[in-house]
Amino acid sequence: MVMTLAEKILAKASGNSQVSPGDIVMAKVETAMVHDITGPLSVNTLKKEGIEKVWDNEKIVIPFDHQIPADSINAAENHILMRNFVKEQGIKHFYDIREGVCHQVLPEKGHVVPGTVIVGADSHTCTYGAFGSFATGIGSTDMAAVFATGELWFKVPETMYFNISGHLKPEVMSKDIILSIIGMVGADGATYKAAQFAGETVKEMTIASRMTMSNMAIEMGGKAGLIEPDRKTVEYVKTAMEKNNTARPFDIIIGDKNAEYEEKFEIEVNDLEPVMACPHNVDNVKTVREVSGTPIDQVFIGSCTNGRIEDLRAALNVIEKHGGISKDIRVIVTPASRSVMLKALDEGLIQKFYKYGCVVTNPSCSACMGALYGLLGPKEVGIATSNRNFRGREGSLESDVYLASPITAAACAVKGEIIDPRDL
Amino acid sequence: MVMTLAEKILAKASGNSQVSPGDIVMAKVETAMVHDITGPLSVNTLKKEGIEKVWDNEKIVIPFDHQIPADSINAAENHILMRNFVKEQGIKHFYDIREGVCHQVLPEKGHVVPGTVIVGADSHTCTYGAFGSFATGIGSTDMAAVFATGELWFKVPETMYFNISGHLKPEVMSKDIILSIIGMVGADGATYKAAQFAGETVKEMTIASRMTMSNMAIEMGGKAGLIEPDRKTVEYVKTAMEKNNTARPFDIIIGDKNAEYEEKFEIEVNDLEPVMACPHNVDNVKTVREVSGTPIDQVFIGSCTNGRIEDLRAALNVIEKHGGISKDIRVIVTPASRSVMLKALDEGLIQKFYKYGCVVTNPSCSACMGALYGLLGPKEVGIATSNRNFRGREGSLESDVYLASPITAAACAVKGEIIDPRDL
Repeated sequence: MVMTLAEKILAKASGNSQVSPGDIVMAKVETAMVHDITGPLSVNTLKKEGIEKVWDNEKIVIPFDHQIPADSINAAENHILMRNFVKEQGIKHFYDIREGVCHQVLPEKGHVVPGTVIVGADSHTCTYGAFGSFATGIGSTDMAAVFATGELWFKVPETMYFNISGHLKPEVMSKDIILSIIGMVGADGATYKAAQFAGETVKEMTIASRMTMSNMAIEMGGKAGLIEPDRKTVEYVKTAMEKNNTARPFDIIIGDKNAEYEEKFEIEVNDLEPVMACPHNVDNVKTVREVSGTPIDQVFIGSCTNGRIEDLRAALNVIEKHGGISKDIRVIVTPASRSVMLKALDEGLIQKFYKYGCVVTNPSCSACMGALYGLLGPKEVGIATSNRNFRGREGSLESDVYLASPITAAACAVKGEIIDPRDL
Repeated sequence: MVMTLAEKILAKASGNSQVSPGDIVMAKVETAMVHDITGPLSVNTLKKEGIEKVWDNEKIVIPFDHQIPADSINAAENHILMRNFVKEQGIKHFYDIREGVCHQVLPEKGHVVPGTVIVGADSHTCTYGAFGSFATGIGSTDMAAVFATGELWFKVPETMYFNISGHLKPEVMSKDIILSIIGMVGADGATYKAAQFAGETVKEMTIASRMTMSNMAIEMGGKAGLIEPDRKTVEYVKTAMEKNNTARPFDIIIGDKNAEYEEKFEIEVNDLEPVMACPHNVDNVKTVREVSGTPIDQVFIGSCTNGRIEDLRAALNVIEKHGGISKDIRVIVTPASRSVMLKALDEGLIQKFYKYGCVVTNPSCSACMGALYGLLGPKEVGIATSNRNFRGREGSLESDVYLASPITAAACAVKGEIIDPRDL
């Protein structure tokens, strides 16, 4: 019998030759990730249950990213707790405050293995679906069970298949595609479904652009957001693994030709315009022109959604082309990882961002979640390249966040108000 | 009658031909500074008193530096309040989140005028004494009076004169001199005195090294920490003013030859060793060798005391020479201003700090005051190039902070424990 990509991965991970949507399977986990905020709860649960040793100290990956460098005594305490856990358990892959955002660090360091099940105690773990893995966010207490056993129950999800064709206009990015899809299906349109992104447009995308797509699958309720691995995937994964001594064999799993999908969407992007998710829901998607002229206070370019080198290049390109940013607003730029930062430094991007008056922070989750820095005050309006704009997400409950692509965000930074990059 | 440098400045600012220690004078203020934390209180006091217009909107300088980018909704609210004040009053010199630490930004932007009285609602305002001004920290409510009138009452202080001679060993910096002086006179040894630093060693110092000296005058209780202006001062000030369109004539005031000093100290630095202020007081000064081997968790290189380009160069030099930093600790590097950051980027320093695994933050007060980021947890030990190590200053009440020069701090970063740079 035929299976989708998600089904095949879950079948393999659970030792079944066949699984179907609705089946409950016990799947082996290839990589389990917790970060500085979710980790302490997992560790404390593990201890409370009296479990002394984790199942595999080479498969647990712990990056610090949400509160780095520690922004409160409580954060510092969480860090200490996790560092002690790392030492005590001999966790091999621990990334302290210097490396950056988990969803960028894990692929870069070769911990994302195509064809496997990956769980993370962070809702945007679905990012790794861009590498053809079944990756999903789980709770910290579920993670304690994974730490103990290396396995987790899953209900095999239906798959929603998005076949994307056409070529993007130069001002349009993969972020605009995924925002449009979320606008179309709604914030709960894919609840507990596997979203699969396919078609020529996706094939042509860089790995970074694909990560932006998969990253936001959860914003329509998706359990996972998969993209079939191809030569680009294999090259990325192999290079990352070799560079970081995490090399291991992996299978390239792709869905069967006649696999059954719950729903198939044909999406043609030739005419796609720059869009934004308007306050206060990710599915409140409008064309940028519909909200053009809205005054803004801050622009945030970064996060696990859009903090990669191509995003920084695209944003800087807009700013350079138009001679700088508005002096009336703040522009915060956060490379997603140390590796992105080093590349951006090499290319002279950071220098230029500073020259234009942007504030470049250390690689971190930054302004994305309204906790570390870059918080919006009451009545303030922020443009963000991140993935959520819920009420209060980036600071005050009375602030507004519009989600956009790095190109659109940069255009708004230049103008000091919302503007379609084509209208600059 | 003869007068000291401090007396002559206060005489001039108060329109007197002669003042003596103990006199109460009303002095004209040349520059008044508040930052994002102290500003709101001054503004609210001003409003409460019903004062509608500040005395001079070109002489008030407002840099944001303590909580940038806004690290809480409250910080964002403070920022909004201050931005509104800036607009409403037409404050000409406002530096939003992008410029860096007040005490670096004010001199760089040409707001520090030799021979004048400068007040700031921040205790380290004495930094500007390095330019031959009488600069002192005042409370936010006093600042409201200055905002209203442009004047403030001062009791003319006695002057303690430190004549410093000799040449520093290559591993010893001006930070070691000022720490030694504070260790010698005690944390209250200069209470309400003007400290004056003079002699061949000071003459040979860069402006940056002098700023480190003056910056810490308050740590022995000093009302001000003055250094007579010379050719270097004039060149720095003129260049800064020209670059930032703040050019204005200024007088070079120096003390009279036979001026009376309350006390005169002869300090010879040829044999000075690297020193540290040990927990929990700035005057608890020991040689680094006395505390060698103490385990550490974090090194912070930055602040208004030691976050300038020569500090970053000196620190990186140590790190490079010894092949990197210890992987067991965190190293946080914070250039004091955007201008320092740009220079450091130009010279490739930031690239190298990142390469070695340091975390480079945006220019800000950073870890100095245990609020923004870089907080220490319980039982943690931090080395800091900043100016205060009071209990809890950098985070937990149970943490320890050792103050040191950038060279010593970098040596500790390399070793992962306290070590004299000569013993690396």
